[in-house]
Amino acid sequence: MPYYIGDVIKDYKRLVIRTPEDFKKTGIDVRIKTRVDGIDAAKGTVHLSDGSALPYDILVMATGAEAVKLGLPGEDLEGVFTLRNLTDALRIKSFLNEKRCRKAVIVGAGYIGMEMCEAFRNLGIDTYVLAKYLYPAPRWDAELSKLITEELEKNKIVFLPLTGSLAIEKGKDFALRLVTDKGNLEADIILIGVGARPNTKLAESLGVEMGRNAIKVDFFQRTSREEVYAVGDCCEVFHRVIGKWTYNPLGDVANKQGRTAGQNIGGASTKFPGVVGAQSFKVFNLEAAAAGITEEEALNHGFQPVSTIIQGLPVGRPMARGEKLALKLVADKTTGKLLGAQSVAEKGAVMRINCLSVALWNGMTLEEIGCLDLAYAPPFGGAWDAIHIAAQMLMRKL
Amino acid sequence: MPYYIGDVIKDYKRLVIRTPEDFKKTGIDVRIKTRVDGIDAAKGTVHLSDGSALPYDILVMATGAEAVKLGLPGEDLEGVFTLRNLTDALRIKSFLNEKRCRKAVIVGAGYIGMEMCEAFRNLGIDTYVLAKYLYPAPRWDAELSKLITEELEKNKIVFLPLTGSLAIEKGKDFALRLVTDKGNLEADIILIGVGARPNTKLAESLGVEMGRNAIKVDFFQRTSREEVYAVGDCCEVFHRVIGKWTYNPLGDVANKQGRTAGQNIGGASTKFPGVVGAQSFKVFNLEAAAAGITEEEALNHGFQPVSTIIQGLPVGRPMARGEKLALKLVADKTTGKLLGAQSVAEKGAVMRINCLSVALWNGMTLEEIGCLDLAYAPPFGGAWDAIHIAAQMLMRKL
Repeated sequence: MPYYIGDVIKDYKRLVIRTPEDFKKTGIDVRIKTRVDGIDAAKGTVHLSDGSALPYDILVMATGAEAVKLGLPGEDLEGVFTLRNLTDALRIKSFLNEKRCRKAVIVGAGYIGMEMCEAFRNLGIDTYVLAKYLYPAPRWDAELSKLITEELEKNKIVFLPLTGSLAIEKGKDFALRLVTDKGNLEADIILIGVGARPNTKLAESLGVEMGRNAIKVDFFQRTSREEVYAVGDCCEVFHRVIGKWTYNPLGDVANKQGRTAGQNIGGASTKFPGVVGAQSFKVFNLEAAAAGITEEEALNHGFQPVSTIIQGLPVGRPMARGEKLALKLVADKTTGKLLGAQSVAEKGAVMRINCLSVALWNGMTLEEIGCLDLAYAPPFGGAWDAIHIAAQMLMRKL
Repeated sequence: MPYYIGDVIKDYKRLVIRTPEDFKKTGIDVRIKTRVDGIDAAKGTVHLSDGSALPYDILVMATGAEAVKLGLPGEDLEGVFTLRNLTDALRIKSFLNEKRCRKAVIVGAGYIGMEMCEAFRNLGIDTYVLAKYLYPAPRWDAELSKLITEELEKNKIVFLPLTGSLAIEKGKDFALRLVTDKGNLEADIILIGVGARPNTKLAESLGVEMGRNAIKVDFFQRTSREEVYAVGDCCEVFHRVIGKWTYNPLGDVANKQGRTAGQNIGGASTKFPGVVGAQSFKVFNLEAAAAGITEEEALNHGFQPVSTIIQGLPVGRPMARGEKLALKLVADKTTGKLLGAQSVAEKGAVMRINCLSVALWNGMTLEEIGCLDLAYAPPFGGAWDAIHIAAQMLMRKL
């Protein structure tokens, strides 16, 4: 009988769970607002913050990840937020409702930065995004990230590249002031979105083996301790393209790992076959998506990467109304296999990357990808899709 | 040195070709408005309708397909059209411009019927679509085709199911009258869209071997005669899911076959690896897409099909505004492999089918498809995408 401990469980057996009473209806002993203070592995007991203890046969570590902070003076001032979970989101929402926010500063231009700048802007808030690097979404090639910068500009987001944060202070014209190496910036709200770090302390206290960054698991989500499983953002995942275990804290992966662990605890023998690093975000009218590895990662993992970028069309030429679709492919010169893909477009970027994710999953070569059978109709692509064109272009570099 | 014979060649070496003069700039001897009246295979000579003859070393049959007619009395009356090529489209366009068309009848509810009813409707023409079967787009499951019927109704297209055409006559209130087994229907324009048939007479006159429906070719696009290649809608194509040669007259496939033949004639040794039957069309605000084979085809080819249909979401639940995505999967009970997929949705149908086309290409099992790594973000899908949910549902029937 598994126990779930956490903030919120939704839609279990079609019950909508909002109150402690709702939890009882699930038939599962769910303890919300309860912290695990320690685990006695020898006795098989979890010690809870309410003073009680729970015995276990099987323990699932689903401790997730926490937002990385910058370690700046003033980072704990009111109005400075990170965003990792629903509680964070509700706190930000209440703050925006209570205070009259006119200006927001986001530190970091990753997924959180991109999604939240749109959210702030849609509330009419002047929004600044500040990053240490030259372009937003640095996982994408500079040529593709440039399109994202243009989209930010078009939507009146001020992007401040190559800017490091030094401190947060009380402001004069606005509630807060961010001190940077390029000058000061005042705002009513500051959101820090610079990444996530796995919560592994509890697992480490059990002596569970760690990977490079997170809890080490096998394909069955088992840790080095027989009775302990780990799932989600606190553990590693197998990356099929590089054939190694990596840290890839994404919600869909966590869901799949949870299902795998659940099935195995229930007596099945289910392997989680890993990921290819598929990811996406939307910012205003742009889709950005990527899968596999970048050229730099390819070099680091001993591949001989070649790459190409094409400016294609998301739809057939007769239907095109000026929309572009930028697609970058990375392949291995030795094997001709696709290693990675990135796309940015007003539409169709996620579709191309999802197709190429399936191609990466199966270790397809550029030659095969160059003549994949895709559902062709002019509203959805050309007879030669951007995928075909890019693969054929890149084949010439093999 | 290959010769191209046809109506229009576009964008060759970035030249836009509109006049005979333009053709000369290509450096290739292109004869437009020229029919091939016969081929002397022994001499290696093509006889043209202008009385001249052309010698050849290599001959490429790219004779395409022609629209199937109904063989009805009155089918040749002015205002009765089929639509297969650019010339047909221009003729229809001129007719619509010259006559004051108020009402259109389309016989057939396949791709031509679906795309053209939208085109007529957008010109303000009252449009009727008539079919022998119960639902439009009969390749799709009835449950999915029902969504298409609803979309037609919503856009004031009258769909007349289970109706057979008997004759075409001059009309009274409108220029033409279609006599059907359900009564008469008058209209200013009648479009017949009931399929295509390969143009194989010329190839047959050479004694080239035929497949079941079209010219038989190998993976290099060679026919049974060493010096004759065939490409496009006049020849067969290898279907990877059933492992057999089939007739699949689609524009993107034709393009790929042409490229393959061209490379091989030029001295390369390029195989065209075949298709998985990916196809799509748009009708008003619906996307319809399919790949692989239907349950019925699966039975005919000796598989043991199982299937499921889900009503999923094209986007993540928090972003959903009532849009549905219907997805049907067909798999083989013996191997657990996916055999086919169909989808109809306001958005996201083509994306799902394109992913599943790549899965079909690689012969993936439902188990693998159920945990494919797709680029997850709520604007583009759920953490469990419709693909995952459908695959996991169908796994239970294995």
